[in-house]
Amino acid sequence: MAKDLPVSPLAVPMPALPPVAGVRLGTVAAGIRYKGRDDLMMMVFAPGTTAAGVFTKSKCPGAPVDWCRKALAGGTARAVVVNAGNANVFTGRAGEEAARLSAEAAAKLVGCAPSEVFLASTGVIGEVLPHGKLTAALPALHDGLSPEAWAEAARGIMTTDTFPKAVTRQASIGGAPVTITGIAKGSGMIAPDMATMLCFVATDAKIPAAALQSALKAGVETSFNCTTVDSDTSTSDTVLLFATGQAEHPEVPAEGGEILAGFREALAGLLHELALQVVRDGEGAQKLIQVTVRGAVSDASAKVVALAIANSPLVKTAIAGEDANWGRIVMAVGKAGEPADRDRLSVAVGGTWMAREGGVVPGYDEAPVVAHMKGGEIEIEVDLGLGEGKATVWTCDLTHGYIDINGSYRS
Amino acid sequence: MAKDLPVSPLAVPMPALPPVAGVRLGTVAAGIRYKGRDDLMMMVFAPGTTAAGVFTKSKCPGAPVDWCRKALAGGTARAVVVNAGNANVFTGRAGEEAARLSAEAAAKLVGCAPSEVFLASTGVIGEVLPHGKLTAALPALHDGLSPEAWAEAARGIMTTDTFPKAVTRQASIGGAPVTITGIAKGSGMIAPDMATMLCFVATDAKIPAAALQSALKAGVETSFNCTTVDSDTSTSDTVLLFATGQAEHPEVPAEGGEILAGFREALAGLLHELALQVVRDGEGAQKLIQVTVRGAVSDASAKVVALAIANSPLVKTAIAGEDANWGRIVMAVGKAGEPADRDRLSVAVGGTWMAREGGVVPGYDEAPVVAHMKGGEIEIEVDLGLGEGKATVWTCDLTHGYIDINGSYRS
Repeated sequence: MAKDLPVSPLAVPMPALPPVAGVRLGTVAAGIRYKGRDDLMMMVFAPGTTAAGVFTKSKCPGAPVDWCRKALAGGTARAVVVNAGNANVFTGRAGEEAARLSAEAAAKLVGCAPSEVFLASTGVIGEVLPHGKLTAALPALHDGLSPEAWAEAARGIMTTDTFPKAVTRQASIGGAPVTITGIAKGSGMIAPDMATMLCFVATDAKIPAAALQSALKAGVETSFNCTTVDSDTSTSDTVLLFATGQAEHPEVPAEGGEILAGFREALAGLLHELALQVVRDGEGAQKLIQVTVRGAVSDASAKVVALAIANSPLVKTAIAGEDANWGRIVMAVGKAGEPADRDRLSVAVGGTWMAREGGVVPGYDEAPVVAHMKGGEIEIEVDLGLGEGKATVWTCDLTHGYIDINGSYRS
Repeated sequence: MAKDLPVSPLAVPMPALPPVAGVRLGTVAAGIRYKGRDDLMMMVFAPGTTAAGVFTKSKCPGAPVDWCRKALAGGTARAVVVNAGNANVFTGRAGEEAARLSAEAAAKLVGCAPSEVFLASTGVIGEVLPHGKLTAALPALHDGLSPEAWAEAARGIMTTDTFPKAVTRQASIGGAPVTITGIAKGSGMIAPDMATMLCFVATDAKIPAAALQSALKAGVETSFNCTTVDSDTSTSDTVLLFATGQAEHPEVPAEGGEILAGFREALAGLLHELALQVVRDGEGAQKLIQVTVRGAVSDASAKVVALAIANSPLVKTAIAGEDANWGRIVMAVGKAGEPADRDRLSVAVGGTWMAREGGVVPGYDEAPVVAHMKGGEIEIEVDLGLGEGKATVWTCDLTHGYIDINGSYRS
């Protein structure tokens, strides 16, 4: 297990996090795996809270993901319970049982149906969640819930994260202000057996479940689904959004529609900022990399090419070495398998076009490129010269730190 | 540029390489990029030699790949010219011209059509091949060709390789013996701007081009196409097979057929051994990893899952750390996107089943697993428990050496 990791050089400070009406939350040390720190987080929501969720596409998801998918069918939520240290993944029927017992214990405290309790777990794979420790710690946790504990919650869900991740935004629905606040964890897809990406967002807006799900899905598509640390997908990735309905604003119709435009935009921005915080904490990351591909035959094609560049170990190691190696970018475009024409391809780094339409730009100015590569935020642009498709994705560099964290001997 | 790399701990000694009737070859220092070593290799084949080839699937291939694809349409070959130090990739019309002029110069010396000359280049991307240096060195190279220079040829095509790669086999066609000898280079898909996978195989058998192509394609499918070092695909990957027709054996029909069974098997074995030599020289490799997936819904599905495991940075770093981390193997199965059922999945390392049908095997013996992980050759087996599909692929671990080689500052 990796210990005492230095804080990422790309870390950002946590903002002040005001309460969200209808949300009480808190953390406690349940001793599930870690010693001397809080590892169990609970949020409780006002009656009438609607819920939306997006989950890992893994074919081998954890028991909590299965649980949440079923719970989401109801569209309402009263609580979410999150533990660090054990992922409850690949644990068969015993894992399902541990999830069910955890939800039932929380439901009893809250006074709701178990299907209104959402669950998320990260940590080791293959060990059944010690749900006895979890349920034993729940009553004290529930007693201590407060509207003020967002910062503690952001810290309580960390595993190999080197800094806590949180964003808050204001939006307007029909002229009335609403608050959206979210916290996230993640640094590698699975790292020393115990990292993954989790995100919990709450708003005091009153939004029907279908409209909430639509807004969340759109926001995740342009945020978390446009980021990659190491191309590995966790069995536990979860983004949950809860709307408590405590704010006063004109009624939102079931299908959402125009009245939600501002909310959707604010939510997308919040998710995007949280996703970038996860990349900034990518295991061993020294540089945040933005890859924009335009001129593709479609937006979907542009995204495949951008992710091929962002996931290429050779591109990522070159950037770690502060080498603006556009040859490797060309290689990654070529291997993506999407329509590309070598002789129309252009590549820029930090705004300097190094290659244009299939060849190096003779005598391009290397000085600004060299300066850009020494910075902490790297911009790569590729123009395929074929159409109007465009996509931007984010990743981090591949460094010795990644090998240290993931290749160290397990105790 | 990486220099003075230590020889891979997984290196194998080069076998004695007897002549192949109808092949003369040699190397020379043309000074294309390297100093003080041979960097240009030529093979000349007897009249009537047939050719087969398999190339990178990159959408941005190098000019030599384009040239070979066209040349292959003729089905005959008299020469192949290979340089190290410059890949002639992403060089536009000037690159095409450099390829054409190189082939014409070789054709003039050999007395054949330029379309009977095959080309391969590896090295930096984005610089036009200095074909003047190449063509200036060709006459002396041509004068010095000999049937005995296979070992020199294997060394002359190396770039970041730490050991030369060659295999020779005997086969029988209709009871008569034939020889097949091949050399290869490669250590990363593209490394310090100048590595890729090239393979040249010659036989004295007399085999029609169509049958030769069919045998090569089948052999590549179970060898080079089942290996991966870092998931990055070169713009220059090339495997060429030449049959000089100098051996005496019963006639092979155009479509090949049963008479070629022994030849095809020997060829496939030779290609497989060469491909494993490339993996053994994978950048930074300390361990050779064999991943077998069975119980998939089809062979193709098994291969996708096996490659997802073999390309996972988290699996590869775990093995570098000698950690039999089956949780990461489960993660990689899940992200592959192929049919998989968490509760039927079994995982073995070094022959010990650690997880069976969706859960850890209680009390499995860790001692043989720990011992296996300390060795240089690691075996992973996954049983999906769904069907009869099966595939085996090979890769190497991901170590600090890979970051050193690919993340060092370019001079």
